[in-house]
Amino acid sequence: MSGQLTLDDLRALDERDPLASRRARFRLPADGVYLDGNSLGALPRRTPAAVADLVENQWGRDLISSWNGHDWIGMPQRLGGLIAPLIGARASEVIACDTTSTNLFKLICAAMTAQPGRPVVLSEPGNFPTNLYMAQGAVGLLGDRVLRTVPVDEIAGAIDESTALVMLTHVHYKSGRKLDMKAFTAAAHAKGALILWDLSHSAGAVPLWLDRNDVDLAVGCGYKYLNGGPGAPAFLFVADRLQERLHSPLPGWMGHDAPFAFEDEFRPSAGILRFLCGTPSVIGMAALESGLKEFDDVDLDALHAKATALGGLFIRLMDQRCDGFGFELASPRRGESRGSHVSYAHPEAYPICQALIARGVVGDFRAPDLLRMGFAPLYTSYADVWVAVETLHAVMHERAWDSDMFRTRARVT
Amino acid sequence: MSGQLTLDDLRALDERDPLASRRARFRLPADGVYLDGNSLGALPRRTPAAVADLVENQWGRDLISSWNGHDWIGMPQRLGGLIAPLIGARASEVIACDTTSTNLFKLICAAMTAQPGRPVVLSEPGNFPTNLYMAQGAVGLLGDRVLRTVPVDEIAGAIDESTALVMLTHVHYKSGRKLDMKAFTAAAHAKGALILWDLSHSAGAVPLWLDRNDVDLAVGCGYKYLNGGPGAPAFLFVADRLQERLHSPLPGWMGHDAPFAFEDEFRPSAGILRFLCGTPSVIGMAALESGLKEFDDVDLDALHAKATALGGLFIRLMDQRCDGFGFELASPRRGESRGSHVSYAHPEAYPICQALIARGVVGDFRAPDLLRMGFAPLYTSYADVWVAVETLHAVMHERAWDSDMFRTRARVT
Repeated sequence: MSGQLTLDDLRALDERDPLASRRARFRLPADGVYLDGNSLGALPRRTPAAVADLVENQWGRDLISSWNGHDWIGMPQRLGGLIAPLIGARASEVIACDTTSTNLFKLICAAMTAQPGRPVVLSEPGNFPTNLYMAQGAVGLLGDRVLRTVPVDEIAGAIDESTALVMLTHVHYKSGRKLDMKAFTAAAHAKGALILWDLSHSAGAVPLWLDRNDVDLAVGCGYKYLNGGPGAPAFLFVADRLQERLHSPLPGWMGHDAPFAFEDEFRPSAGILRFLCGTPSVIGMAALESGLKEFDDVDLDALHAKATALGGLFIRLMDQRCDGFGFELASPRRGESRGSHVSYAHPEAYPICQALIARGVVGDFRAPDLLRMGFAPLYTSYADVWVAVETLHAVMHERAWDSDMFRTRARVT
Repeated sequence: MSGQLTLDDLRALDERDPLASRRARFRLPADGVYLDGNSLGALPRRTPAAVADLVENQWGRDLISSWNGHDWIGMPQRLGGLIAPLIGARASEVIACDTTSTNLFKLICAAMTAQPGRPVVLSEPGNFPTNLYMAQGAVGLLGDRVLRTVPVDEIAGAIDESTALVMLTHVHYKSGRKLDMKAFTAAAHAKGALILWDLSHSAGAVPLWLDRNDVDLAVGCGYKYLNGGPGAPAFLFVADRLQERLHSPLPGWMGHDAPFAFEDEFRPSAGILRFLCGTPSVIGMAALESGLKEFDDVDLDALHAKATALGGLFIRLMDQRCDGFGFELASPRRGESRGSHVSYAHPEAYPICQALIARGVVGDFRAPDLLRMGFAPLYTSYADVWVAVETLHAVMHERAWDSDMFRTRARVT
């Protein structure tokens, strides 16, 4: 497809898409296009029944016996086993638990306390805020430690013998820039530091090979591409080779070697379970498990290729249809350097986003000036991309965004 | 009712019970008696529809817009407002969030770091394990701090100028012993220490007056008497007068003064919201909110009186029917000193508990030798107590527990 793209071209891609049949498994707006699956994944049609079974049968009918009878106690590890193949890890290295923020804190502290002679956590300014905040919290508690931020392209050169941990987000939540996991991991290891990757905008959309790249630590989000629903449990990865060396700063009873022995002294469980803390959100786990099952039998190479293609076509169509409206591409143009969302800077990004939403095209705004569109490859179609760009063209051409109605900011966007 | 109790006596109490109509609002076993609501509360009949609305309409149909449109962002505080009257607090002092374990960690660290000259957290041995474990985790991170445990009756005398925090559980998970909140709080304050109460086995069953007793800090569980479902979000209380002085060690983005400004530096929110961490479990919150609504318009004095009466009648019936079977009361006999569960020690408690469950009477076993029965006053009837004791009498009389089938331990009990 060179030259001008047409709607027929995109429809032809949908017809050839090996993942096309997955779309029907999700509830999507009938008269719109949902391009915010990187913020809150769409509802899998099987999830309401899975949640209802959990609530009505497992909780309501079987009550406390479900901890064993329906293996609630095994959920963190069972869901970890479903996430592992999506991130190139072994099942023994992943659990679903708590929130991304809490899991960041666990692993930052675990990495720092295991290396008392190395006082520095290194990250980039403009990383997702909670990553920096949790590091600030950790160094504040530990004392004599520091969070140092340098621009991402200077990170490799800034790693030295004082660095305990390099903390990076694989796909940046604003720009969609995807970092070279292998190169950064090797750079950290060359100086004896550990590395912690945040996979929140990566897992379920882009190729991840944690074991192959010798990654130490990672966290990620359950409610974005993994389709776990609002506030879904997050996940946490610790390489097998490190588990016995690291200790959770939040040694809750679920991470104890024998939680139901009710001992006074914490003894960490063997393996990844030592990073559990309190009682898991069982209902949230059921929704996340249902979301993860939508990846069953998916050809991951096809999934990742589609993610790259959707973003690439969006950029081509923006070039073709929205040139001259003042948009500036804020994401990498090369697919290999990009995650599965694309952002454009525009001084009027906020009302433009609102006007788009009013016409059924749901993306999001990220302060101060970004319009961000996410392409969840399990259910976004190629034709969706066409509709989004045509709608944006209409909004810009008609100056539909230039209205007080669209300028009023809600608390959360 | 003096002398021998009869089933008719208990049925008469049910007929006069002002809370009797609440029972029908819960799903309870048709052919059994559920006396484990202090571990996992029963399912409110309205909850499946509330959860389905959240999943299908709010998430499935309205997607990301629900953060504002259905006020997901306000859930922690809205649910805090429902919990506040149950614990004698102001709405501004309570949020629902995270797990009890995580909330313990937040408040232990906040109390310790606010009082750098006081190195000691004081608690009792045999406190619920996660309380001790989280304190061990906190003092381990902070350095030069110590967790000291002394028997609960020696706590008041052990508080001194080195004590930063007294951490106690109001109703003990094993014995059901209820501590004098006013006296212990005053004892802590007399030496300038703060106090942190765990209300997990109290909230929703026994009278609580946090503000009247000048309590500083508290946490509690959402899935016991509050009926929030398995792994429900927990709650956290910080007295208004302390909120600006205390800082969360887990400064996640939801606790930031402007989460969607995406700033690099953490600035705590004003008030109780600074103790939020990551994105809340929205589905879990919906179930908890539904559970909390079962307390709407409940006469709390009647609720607390019924809780005391149920436990007292259980003890009387045990005296009457199970004397000579080797049970030893492990809970206070006086209602004023007891929470809403009653435990008996017996060397064969484990198989006895399993044999009871096989006959439809669900209590639980707590290692090494306790049979524990919980009386959730919203839905437990007086006749349930009769059935429980009669069934236990039959199990003991027939030695029905003395079977390999009941001796095999499951992982979780």
